[in-house]
Amino acid sequence: MDASIPSKLKAAFDRGLVAAIAQDVETNQVLMLAWMNEAAFTQTLKTKRVTYFSRSRQQLWVKGETSGNFQELISMDFDCDGDAILVKVKIHGPACHTGNVSCFHESINLDQ
Amino acid sequence: MDASIPSKLKAAFDRGLVAAIAQDVETNQVLMLAWMNEAAFTQTLKTKRVTYFSRSRQQLWVKGETSGNFQELISMDFDCDGDAILVKVKIHGPACHTGNVSCFHESINLDQ
Repeated sequence: MDASIPSKLKAAFDRGLVAAIAQDVETNQVLMLAWMNEAAFTQTLKTKRVTYFSRSRQQLWVKGETSGNFQELISMDFDCDGDAILVKVKIHGPACHTGNVSCFHESINLDQ
Repeated sequence: MDASIPSKLKAAFDRGLVAAIAQDVETNQVLMLAWMNEAAFTQTLKTKRVTYFSRSRQQLWVKGETSGNFQELISMDFDCDGDAILVKVKIHGPACHTGNVSCFHESINLDQ
């Protein structure tokens, strides 16, 4: 699979983890930020189920493997630096372990 | 300003940089991923112009300071881990130095 990874992204994987932003392809809601290594990226491409690399567990993490809340891969675009990926997904349940659709659910008060 | 930073986020700033995802509040397009330290966060809140911490230059980076392409702060939400912030912005020009609206403009071919 190596040859099919764009060189800029390959270089980022060689340096370390790449940030992956999951966005709901239907609502455009940003769901979560997690991390991918090269194995997570290639597994995501192959299975079309989004797979991250868990920094806490130091292993591949198929999103929804335990909860059933899979993220179905629709598209991936990487950024100009080659160190972040925007992953558009069709959701099969909430992204957050709290039950919220998105992990971004704590607002910051701007009036301060 | 310290007291007004939610404790989970404050802990993340004390550990290091926090990922910040900028999203266009009007189109919902994800624009870029950058980083904030506590100073960038508090300056963003105070000025309502999004300020990041540049890892390459190791200094605060007011987005648009050079290009004029400011990002006007509309809202900020942080995630359940407290280590990422979703920043909704009104854009005043493209996010990317290439002239693209979004830094995420390189598609990955899924047919492999």
